[in-house]
Amino acid sequence: MTANRTETRRQRPDAAEIALIDRYWRAANYLSVGQIYLLDNPLLREPLKAEHIKPRLLGHWGTTPGLNFIYAHLNRIIRARDANVIYVCGPGHGGPGMVANTYLEGTYSEVYPAIGEDAEGLQKLFKQFSFPGGVPSHVAPETPGSIHEGGELGYALVHAYGAAFDNPDLVVACVVGDGEAETGPLSTSWQSHKFLNAARDGAVLPILHLNGYKIANPTVLARMSDEDLRSLFTGYGYQPYFVEGHEPEKMHPRMAEVLDEVFDVIAEIQAKARSGDAGHGCPRWPMIVLRSPKGWTGPKEVDGLKVEDFWRSHQVPVSNCRGDAGHRKILEEWMQSYGPHDLFDEAGRLRPELRALAPQGRRRMGANPHANGGLLRRTLELPDIRDYAVAVESPGRDLGQSTRVLGSYLRDVMRMNDKYSNFRVFGPDETESNRLGDVFQATDRVWMEDIQPYDVHLSPDGRVMEVLSEHLCQGWLEGYLLTGRHGFFSCYEAFIHIVDSMFNQHAKWLQVSRELSWRKPVSSLNYLLTSHVWRQDHNGLSHQDPGFIDLVANKKADIVRIYLPPDANTLLWVGDHCLKTYDRINVIVAGKQPEPQWLTMEEAVQHCEAGMGRWDWASNEGEEEPDVVMACAGDVPTMETLAAVDLLREHIPDLKVRVVNVVDLLALQPQYRHPHGLDDEAFDALFTKNRPVVFAYHGYPYLIHRLTYKRRNHGNIHVHGFVDEGTTTSPFDMTVMNELDRYHLALAAIKWVPGLEVRASEVVAELQGKLDAHHHYVRAYGEDMPEIRDWTWSR
Amino acid sequence: MTANRTETRRQRPDAAEIALIDRYWRAANYLSVGQIYLLDNPLLREPLKAEHIKPRLLGHWGTTPGLNFIYAHLNRIIRARDANVIYVCGPGHGGPGMVANTYLEGTYSEVYPAIGEDAEGLQKLFKQFSFPGGVPSHVAPETPGSIHEGGELGYALVHAYGAAFDNPDLVVACVVGDGEAETGPLSTSWQSHKFLNAARDGAVLPILHLNGYKIANPTVLARMSDEDLRSLFTGYGYQPYFVEGHEPEKMHPRMAEVLDEVFDVIAEIQAKARSGDAGHGCPRWPMIVLRSPKGWTGPKEVDGLKVEDFWRSHQVPVSNCRGDAGHRKILEEWMQSYGPHDLFDEAGRLRPELRALAPQGRRRMGANPHANGGLLRRTLELPDIRDYAVAVESPGRDLGQSTRVLGSYLRDVMRMNDKYSNFRVFGPDETESNRLGDVFQATDRVWMEDIQPYDVHLSPDGRVMEVLSEHLCQGWLEGYLLTGRHGFFSCYEAFIHIVDSMFNQHAKWLQVSRELSWRKPVSSLNYLLTSHVWRQDHNGLSHQDPGFIDLVANKKADIVRIYLPPDANTLLWVGDHCLKTYDRINVIVAGKQPEPQWLTMEEAVQHCEAGMGRWDWASNEGEEEPDVVMACAGDVPTMETLAAVDLLREHIPDLKVRVVNVVDLLALQPQYRHPHGLDDEAFDALFTKNRPVVFAYHGYPYLIHRLTYKRRNHGNIHVHGFVDEGTTTSPFDMTVMNELDRYHLALAAIKWVPGLEVRASEVVAELQGKLDAHHHYVRAYGEDMPEIRDWTWSR
Repeated sequence: MTANRTETRRQRPDAAEIALIDRYWRAANYLSVGQIYLLDNPLLREPLKAEHIKPRLLGHWGTTPGLNFIYAHLNRIIRARDANVIYVCGPGHGGPGMVANTYLEGTYSEVYPAIGEDAEGLQKLFKQFSFPGGVPSHVAPETPGSIHEGGELGYALVHAYGAAFDNPDLVVACVVGDGEAETGPLSTSWQSHKFLNAARDGAVLPILHLNGYKIANPTVLARMSDEDLRSLFTGYGYQPYFVEGHEPEKMHPRMAEVLDEVFDVIAEIQAKARSGDAGHGCPRWPMIVLRSPKGWTGPKEVDGLKVEDFWRSHQVPVSNCRGDAGHRKILEEWMQSYGPHDLFDEAGRLRPELRALAPQGRRRMGANPHANGGLLRRTLELPDIRDYAVAVESPGRDLGQSTRVLGSYLRDVMRMNDKYSNFRVFGPDETESNRLGDVFQATDRVWMEDIQPYDVHLSPDGRVMEVLSEHLCQGWLEGYLLTGRHGFFSCYEAFIHIVDSMFNQHAKWLQVSRELSWRKPVSSLNYLLTSHVWRQDHNGLSHQDPGFIDLVANKKADIVRIYLPPDANTLLWVGDHCLKTYDRINVIVAGKQPEPQWLTMEEAVQHCEAGMGRWDWASNEGEEEPDVVMACAGDVPTMETLAAVDLLREHIPDLKVRVVNVVDLLALQPQYRHPHGLDDEAFDALFTKNRPVVFAYHGYPYLIHRLTYKRRNHGNIHVHGFVDEGTTTSPFDMTVMNELDRYHLALAAIKWVPGLEVRASEVVAELQGKLDAHHHYVRAYGEDMPEIRDWTWSR
Repeated sequence: MTANRTETRRQRPDAAEIALIDRYWRAANYLSVGQIYLLDNPLLREPLKAEHIKPRLLGHWGTTPGLNFIYAHLNRIIRARDANVIYVCGPGHGGPGMVANTYLEGTYSEVYPAIGEDAEGLQKLFKQFSFPGGVPSHVAPETPGSIHEGGELGYALVHAYGAAFDNPDLVVACVVGDGEAETGPLSTSWQSHKFLNAARDGAVLPILHLNGYKIANPTVLARMSDEDLRSLFTGYGYQPYFVEGHEPEKMHPRMAEVLDEVFDVIAEIQAKARSGDAGHGCPRWPMIVLRSPKGWTGPKEVDGLKVEDFWRSHQVPVSNCRGDAGHRKILEEWMQSYGPHDLFDEAGRLRPELRALAPQGRRRMGANPHANGGLLRRTLELPDIRDYAVAVESPGRDLGQSTRVLGSYLRDVMRMNDKYSNFRVFGPDETESNRLGDVFQATDRVWMEDIQPYDVHLSPDGRVMEVLSEHLCQGWLEGYLLTGRHGFFSCYEAFIHIVDSMFNQHAKWLQVSRELSWRKPVSSLNYLLTSHVWRQDHNGLSHQDPGFIDLVANKKADIVRIYLPPDANTLLWVGDHCLKTYDRINVIVAGKQPEPQWLTMEEAVQHCEAGMGRWDWASNEGEEEPDVVMACAGDVPTMETLAAVDLLREHIPDLKVRVVNVVDLLALQPQYRHPHGLDDEAFDALFTKNRPVVFAYHGYPYLIHRLTYKRRNHGNIHVHGFVDEGTTTSPFDMTVMNELDRYHLALAAIKWVPGLEVRASEVVAELQGKLDAHHHYVRAYGEDMPEIRDWTWSR
């Protein structure tokens, strides 16, 4: 190791190379400022005039020079070691910097040929930034080399780790801004290395960029002493290196030295782990604390107020350069301070000695295929779902645990793709409790800290990722998908709200990246929401919330799918289908408790492909129009609906009842709204044009109205769902509290069929009596009446 | 200080007191197990039979003995020092422990007289736990002494800090479970002490309870070395103390010793800060790392598998004690091991020498009024909104910045209540950028780290709390409100989704606590969502999301309110109103950019009190029914609607247009659904029974359909809103992309009025031409056409 280090030291850049790196950095800074300010005159070949300045100045300078500094030094180390590096840019406001660097290295013009490497290209590059019809002000899908949208802060580091898993040769350099470092998700992301196996995974190099300020405040971390910072990151398990200062002539050599050192340490850790003598335990990975001034190299003061190294440089450090000649002068001097003539040739092309500093081809961070994961994505190999089918000889007679069956299927997905190392299962400590435990026949939970002899299914080589942080599960998975792999996230339904905002941002990423032909499709993000609202009777109200579906239903139609399979075979079809899709977010809601099984595998396939359908075996309408449609979506609503139909058919045999089950929720929407939407004719054929529909729905009932308000029979749809009534009680009592139980559903059918309430008044009384009996029984004995617990469909 | 410490050491408990504490702890453990398992035979006076056992065993043992251990020792220190302490229990599963302890100290029977302090009371106490009609399995509003629902994990510590602010005499003991410690929000909560001023705020004593396991995994923190833990918490700025072991005879004295020490340190820090010689800088507050076995004192093994000190003791360590006699024997021996005869007298009452260990009256942690904040809540003193009114001589002619006006009002709320120290403003670094900066005339941002001479509005005494973590803002505010104070949270609209789940949990807390007569009302949680979707044109798609409203609208009607004031005077009314309410969550969405001002203060008051209304000055229907209703909700939709009406009236003067503006969004719902809901007659009077309604709405359009689907004229309501089209562009272009702009709205009106499209075909062509012109202009010049930017209402 010593020899290795010594040799590396000899590679250290000499003064001449340092001078070149400094010029390269100046070029990136120049292009960054140009993007924020200029409409024209990109090389400042004439004095700066008002009309050269954008009328609206939108963009963020403050973080950008530091990002450019890091980029330039990573370029050097990539060239020196032929390293495979991507750059995750946490300070999303640094859009101008990422665009500038990918332009300088040539990637940008390859991806966007209209932005050429000449003066005209520069002018277009400047104008398009943060401009209508142009590119966003933040790092975004449009930015080559990015897998991480800047904007909502908190997820840079967790994305970086997601990218590093199963990419043994990759180094993910991740810049964490000191604003972002205050967020919760980022704070726990530091623990991620305890799930990263140096033998099979790549490396993450966190660079905490302390530039001191947020929009209008200092940052908590920047005002910590070096001693406390060292202590904090040592406590998290890292080996911190400090690069601090503001004089470029000192900062460049120091950064080069530290990068050499940390890349050596990474190589040592990996060599040791891969030599097979590593054992368990977490290696002490390096991380860098970079303290540099906010708005570094920008105007020191404007109008007598401190700007450089202060929050006033956060966004546009000198405003109104169009209208204020004095300000324009500051801008011009600032831009000239980088010496554009020294950076770009007559044609406006980066001078060749600078261009030579960028890596070549796919080693350029803007062109690294890991940052356009669809390029590397390999389709999953999937078993035949029929091999896992639950035998259903008679609908509703036997019980099964849907997620347990899916667990067997996932086990074999894991096995079949093990050789490709491209599939992982994620969850907050709930894989077993969500009944997916069969996957542990194929793999373990990954765990890099100590493992005790009595621990169960823990190993450094596991492919199940469990940590009590939905943020980490979601973020790791996003990073894993965006770099071209596949995954499955199972979560308690109520607590998926913790990552609402991450879901939003990922949906936005997909929405935009689908429009970019150069971005290749990535695998869908698949959620299995189980331990759902109707089966959290033991945990109570805090665990009861089906509202994530509502959030999802707001998204662009072709980005999202919501599935509510009522039993094991439909869940198998849905799970298998979701693993085959790409560029989507699939939400599956399914129970983990024993529940009736309705459909054979062949019936399940047909039912799921249609999205919804009539269950003939439960209906008794014959060739006539039904008196009432009993519709259902979700496993518990389906069971209660069938039990209600059972009651209706027993007590009112001449009532013509149709049962409709919905698996693909968004198919309720009109076709023009969603690609899966049923056409109106098919919808009317199922739900009739004018008969009452009692719709038992898994979540908040309002969503069904929202999805169907354009349908002809909408005025007759009466939805029962979760209305925020919950506590610790029995499973059936949960449905009663929300009037989603068999008795209330049967009573609703009787109420809405004209004239029936009078004719069937004795039935009404009996059903109400059942509700009373339930109420007393459950409070006396703590469990549901045997006739409820033991009910099965037997028609 | 030395003398002080020496004196305290003499207070240390002797062996006799330690023995009593151990018995007290055993009593709490006994009651905890009893709650999980027993229906009857609470004192084990006869052999345990099947029928004594609950049919469904719901509850969590694992964390409970540790929680009980801490409770017993806090009781001692409260008595020894007459300390004012509340207990925030992060491991929410520990419900049985918190119930047991509040019962032992007598609080429980005072709050719930039906649960007496005798054998019958014990039987009821046991039976009701996690039982239909009883109490939840988690710490919940029903639990005396709690301000923190157990369930979703992550917020214990941030709640604790919220409770400590402005409560100088209070010590908030906060137990953080090692599962919870893995979450993001908890990880950043450790930074909270950097916002806590020892001179004016109370103390938080974090107790990190490492019992090693989650549901089925070890925990990340428990497998860290003491050295790394020490480093981590030292880095966070604390002074960690370790209490580790499993032998009660060693653990009791050690815990007593450490608690004495940390209470001394707290007293020293406070004395120094309050002596006035403190200066800035963060004191190094103590925290405790308690390592104790999961399921401590429970069965060591069951069926040959490790249970104590392992995850198998997480929930119910020995199952099916009703059906399995062997298991029942284990349970009986376990419960007998606590020696119930030694703990409770013949009548079933805690023996007096043990009862004497609990503090008295309001010093009992279950009876501390800070944990029932409504008892301490003092109504805010509020200025007269008329003093801040914007003069509106003619509607829509002059521009104003609504949030800036509200800022002046909030400044004076701050000043008027300064003497009561009960009002704070929270936000993620955005108070100034959200134009509420006038509050800085009254106070600063609180900041305990170093302050530089050039820093602006930073001070240890500030009452504005800014940190780049929505989780911290929300959690601090919740803790502050639940202990009886008031606050205001301003946030970027898109990023409030980060705390969706915290909002959910707080709404659930309010829903339940409102039903408990002993819980007194707390102030409402008030959100101001600004920098909203229509004014994030500079930040792009990641910053554009109005979906929080949809989440809120799912909640129980009387818990939530959603306000969309269109201008400054309406915002003043709404802000003032919200600060007067209690037990609610109020969401206000309002812009920060200059925008037309519509209503005088008197008009604003009338309009807001009604919730919505016709704007006669903009309508030209006269005494007749209008041809079209132009409805709007939100500031930008209102401006675009008025501009559309302006166009319509200019180009089609005989078209009868009615303008309706909605401030109180949920008033659109039927009265039976929401207390503010308009009755159908009033709704029809505004929206007509059969005329087309073009509704320009701030958020996702589907919500308006959902709220109005029961209304007679619903089929004619055509909603324009945000349909997920966004990027970095101009403000007006954002509305065009989503067809919410004046041209699309006017075109929609023409389309939906029967026959008008043909008659007004030239107008249609002109409006479409305007859209084309806009498109070209904005892409050429980067800003909106002057006729758009400069438009004002001038009729």
